[in-house]
Amino acid sequence: MTLAAPEKATVASDYSAEEGRLVIHGRDREGIVSAISSVLADAGANIVSLDQYSTDPHGGQFFQRTVFQVPDFRLVRPDLEASLERVIGNDLGLDWRLIDSSQPKRVAIFASKTDHCLLDLLWRHRRGELPISVQMVISNHPDLADEVRQFGIPFFCVPIRNGDKKAAEAEHLRLLQGNVDLIVLARYMQIISADFIRDVGVPMINIHHSFLPAFIGAGPYRKAKERGVKLIGATAHYVTEDLDEGPIIEQDVVRVSHTATTAELTQRGADVERLVLSRAVAWHCEDRVLRNGNSTIVFAS
Amino acid sequence: MTLAAPEKATVASDYSAEEGRLVIHGRDREGIVSAISSVLADAGANIVSLDQYSTDPHGGQFFQRTVFQVPDFRLVRPDLEASLERVIGNDLGLDWRLIDSSQPKRVAIFASKTDHCLLDLLWRHRRGELPISVQMVISNHPDLADEVRQFGIPFFCVPIRNGDKKAAEAEHLRLLQGNVDLIVLARYMQIISADFIRDVGVPMINIHHSFLPAFIGAGPYRKAKERGVKLIGATAHYVTEDLDEGPIIEQDVVRVSHTATTAELTQRGADVERLVLSRAVAWHCEDRVLRNGNSTIVFAS
Amino acid sequence: MTLAAPEKATVASDYSAEEGRLVIHGRDREGIVSAISSVLADAGANIVSLDQYSTDPHGGQFFQRTVFQVPDFRLVRPDLEASLERVIGNDLGLDWRLIDSSQPKRVAIFASKTDHCLLDLLWRHRRGELPISVQMVISNHPDLADEVRQFGIPFFCVPIRNGDKKAAEAEHLRLLQGNVDLIVLARYMQIISADFIRDVGVPMINIHHSFLPAFIGAGPYRKAKERGVKLIGATAHYVTEDLDEGPIIEQDVVRVSHTATTAELTQRGADVERLVLSRAVAWHCEDRVLRNGNSTIVFAS
Amino acid sequence: MTLAAPEKATVASDYSAEEGRLVIHGRDREGIVSAISSVLADAGANIVSLDQYSTDPHGGQFFQRTVFQVPDFRLVRPDLEASLERVIGNDLGLDWRLIDSSQPKRVAIFASKTDHCLLDLLWRHRRGELPISVQMVISNHPDLADEVRQFGIPFFCVPIRNGDKKAAEAEHLRLLQGNVDLIVLARYMQIISADFIRDVGVPMINIHHSFLPAFIGAGPYRKAKERGVKLIGATAHYVTEDLDEGPIIEQDVVRVSHTATTAELTQRGADVERLVLSRAVAWHCEDRVLRNGNSTIVFAS
Repeated sequence: MTLAAPEKATVASDYSAEEGRLVIHGRDREGIVSAISSVLADAGANIVSLDQYSTDPHGGQFFQRTVFQVPDFRLVRPDLEASLERVIGNDLGLDWRLIDSSQPKRVAIFASKTDHCLLDLLWRHRRGELPISVQMVISNHPDLADEVRQFGIPFFCVPIRNGDKKAAEAEHLRLLQGNVDLIVLARYMQIISADFIRDVGVPMINIHHSFLPAFIGAGPYRKAKERGVKLIGATAHYVTEDLDEGPIIEQDVVRVSHTATTAELTQRGADVERLVLSRAVAWHCEDRVLRNGNSTIVFAS
Repeated sequence: MTLAAPEKATVASDYSAEEGRLVIHGRDREGIVSAISSVLADAGANIVSLDQYSTDPHGGQFFQRTVFQVPDFRLVRPDLEASLERVIGNDLGLDWRLIDSSQPKRVAIFASKTDHCLLDLLWRHRRGELPISVQMVISNHPDLADEVRQFGIPFFCVPIRNGDKKAAEAEHLRLLQGNVDLIVLARYMQIISADFIRDVGVPMINIHHSFLPAFIGAGPYRKAKERGVKLIGATAHYVTEDLDEGPIIEQDVVRVSHTATTAELTQRGADVERLVLSRAVAWHCEDRVLRNGNSTIVFAS
Repeated sequence: MTLAAPEKATVASDYSAEEGRLVIHGRDREGIVSAISSVLADAGANIVSLDQYSTDPHGGQFFQRTVFQVPDFRLVRPDLEASLERVIGNDLGLDWRLIDSSQPKRVAIFASKTDHCLLDLLWRHRRGELPISVQMVISNHPDLADEVRQFGIPFFCVPIRNGDKKAAEAEHLRLLQGNVDLIVLARYMQIISADFIRDVGVPMINIHHSFLPAFIGAGPYRKAKERGVKLIGATAHYVTEDLDEGPIIEQDVVRVSHTATTAELTQRGADVERLVLSRAVAWHCEDRVLRNGNSTIVFAS
Repeated sequence: MTLAAPEKATVASDYSAEEGRLVIHGRDREGIVSAISSVLADAGANIVSLDQYSTDPHGGQFFQRTVFQVPDFRLVRPDLEASLERVIGNDLGLDWRLIDSSQPKRVAIFASKTDHCLLDLLWRHRRGELPISVQMVISNHPDLADEVRQFGIPFFCVPIRNGDKKAAEAEHLRLLQGNVDLIVLARYMQIISADFIRDVGVPMINIHHSFLPAFIGAGPYRKAKERGVKLIGATAHYVTEDLDEGPIIEQDVVRVSHTATTAELTQRGADVERLVLSRAVAWHCEDRVLRNGNSTIVFAS
């Protein structure tokens, strides 16, 4: 039957097609979208999805995320990279990153004793909801070892002995370096040093248990109770040297009433924390989050 | 038929029944609920709705709001008040207030040039959604005079001449004293002096255009844009001497993205502000809001 | 020190105090609240929390949930029950239930292959968030056996052989009868027969993966995609003979866009399902949910 | 200085720059994004914002909305249209529309006696929040005439005499034809005939006071009360021949409890209705809403 032929053809080309992401950032100027789509079209790539944003079309900052399919991506990649560097890098003066969508981000999760954010990530990971490969879990306490290992994931306990954070961070670096693309602090109750942030060389996402910038620092649910707020929230943000001041990726809130004790706020907040953190990790690992100074552009629907 | 008799009686007593509210606050101890309901039952009052809350059943703060119906409320009121003072005031040592539900709170609204919160209150008032009687609108600018007067409500422009706030506040007091039970600051862009708060002698509700305690003070939408938050909010609170630090009555938020400019945040936030303020005013005027130090108990469903 | 004495006394009486719940339902009439609180006061019980609701103060349906503390609850319980039956049952003609708050409800969870609602309940149970004791998990598939048993909970696989539901339900009854106070259908993909509902004799809570009454029956996420809705939801309800028509306990929604595939709706919806189901189970097991015909009264904050 | 020159040039061209929107729809195929951006670049247009979506990159339906700036849009428009017809229309076989962003959509609003949706639109219109020009308000009742005329907008009362809808619709057509680009039914309580929908030739947006597809038809708040739902909602949709079955543009919900009467549901729902309708009108009039069968693609952030 003739009708079947094109359908088969479509399926056949689908199997050999592979997907890539192109993320671009730099000073806005005329013709960027057209130049990028031409480079991709010349490489035989079909744009599947395109998001762009400019802080100001006249000299602002330009951000674009393009998802494309191209047959034999690995084969054509070197040529595509050369074209991108010539057109996007040199001619237009923009930063660009090319990502193979089939490669999940390698992730280390840090936790302490609280398990809800950690378990939620491991469970979503197992269900295939997150485009990540969890390489290890690191904790300053041994409590969660069994839970983690039941998911088939290595658990390393790195206690902070005699308050010696430097030694612990050195051990962290030995475990992490070269092995991960992202660190997720899933209610890890230790402050990260500026040295570590610099040395580790990969982004870190933290979940803070308040609607930042409200209730920075320790004890946000207790502070929320004292202030008598009617909503409590959680914030996922990139870790910077300034505690709880890094670029916000995602936030959400839940309604509470005067009857809730601090313990109940903590419990209700836990549900928001795990939702917010899992969204932030998913979006980051799909390259949907672009940093713009101390803010983020999030190309998510 | 015998069955018909009590039903007719019920209907008949319904016509002459009137509704009151009893609001109680003080140190918790055993037997309060029982004592209050006995006093009401002895007065022939039928409890229609009862909300109570205790910060701690062993010596914490106790709060109760009871709505009751009683035939000929105005006639029995003196006797009921005497019983309440004896049992609730003297024996139990609690503060109590008795309110005639049929009496709407007399309200003055303060505004500046921004109209959305003011108009929303006036609309709801006209639609009969709010148990209030708007006595006057006071503004430091003349811009909204026509709008207000179309609702049949007096508008008084009290400009602040040469920065002389004291003179303006004196004029406010002359207009307000004895005439209102509540002042609503519907985006009134002036700081209220401690003297005025003390002298005016009625509660004041303010709408702050952020999710407090985030972004206290001026320019919250600009600050929200700079911080890159993913939700913006509004907070209705009682006015105290400490700017934006008074007891919170109600809050809500709306999701925003990186694409929103400060002007668009301002516009989207306006919708939250007017919703939050109208809820706070309705709840206050139905005596559903009880102050507990710097927090509020809100008996609202 | 004299100051210490009353504090010690309070603590001492606190240790022997126990907590009960009294749930009342029936035709509204004058004096109910007063009568109930008198019975409790006479028994030496201190009301900790009281919620009541009447569909109509003149002859409507009256609902009340009272939490009280009383020393030596088990000792005084028989006398209290006698008083309640005399005053509440006989004199006022109301139904009442007295519950010992320290006794968690015994729960069986039914599941099929989908794990998110089941695991979420087991996690919360382990964290102490739910006032339940999970007695067993029953499934028509063996897939989740290991997961469940890691929580130390019995797992029974009752497959439906050759479509013989009657045999399977007979097996369910043998496992359940006398052992549980509540059955939770955590995405159990089998229709429950009217016979089973009658014979099992305990309430059943189901989670339906849509915002009822929209998208009754199978495939709600597919239907939601076809209809192009902008929010998807989940509904926890009591199971009745009419599929997806039982009294609703709790509902919630999440925003989606045109980009979401049916698979993505299913994934996003799973987060709502588990939140909604856990709330409904918690509220039911705290005796906060009272049935009123085909609706529910939910005394939750 | 040479560096200054282009910057000045940019500013100069900015003054004469104008903004257009290009909306495209059709069968997806490779190279569309590239082809469109080339046509725009060749016309000297700078892409300010681009949204696209494909139901399936292999032969699905493709949708794109592009906002661009171009100097002297009116002058270059004929040439641009010729290029678009050649490349987009003929070569790629896609439907396209070119819109001058500076031209607000001309709108007629239909209402009956309920004012909240109508007043909200008029008020947002006056504030400049909506890119529309309200040409007239048509009602089957005279009640809202004064309200509307205070906004400086013509009000036409077209009563339905002796149930003769045909005569009323004929009068509507005389008023509307050639004068409007959009009709908004702001709680207009009359069913629109299939003939009218066909003859009027412009899109119609209706606000339905429920979360469709729940509670289709009359009395949704009463039905919601009977079903005991825990959230109530509103839905803005395009009007089609099938009552309440047209493509959904926007929906939202608000939480309610068992205490709310049908009247209170109606009141709380009114707040959701006006928010949902105003969003749908704004998005439609910014050409952000594209129809895809009985669904919509909404390019809104």
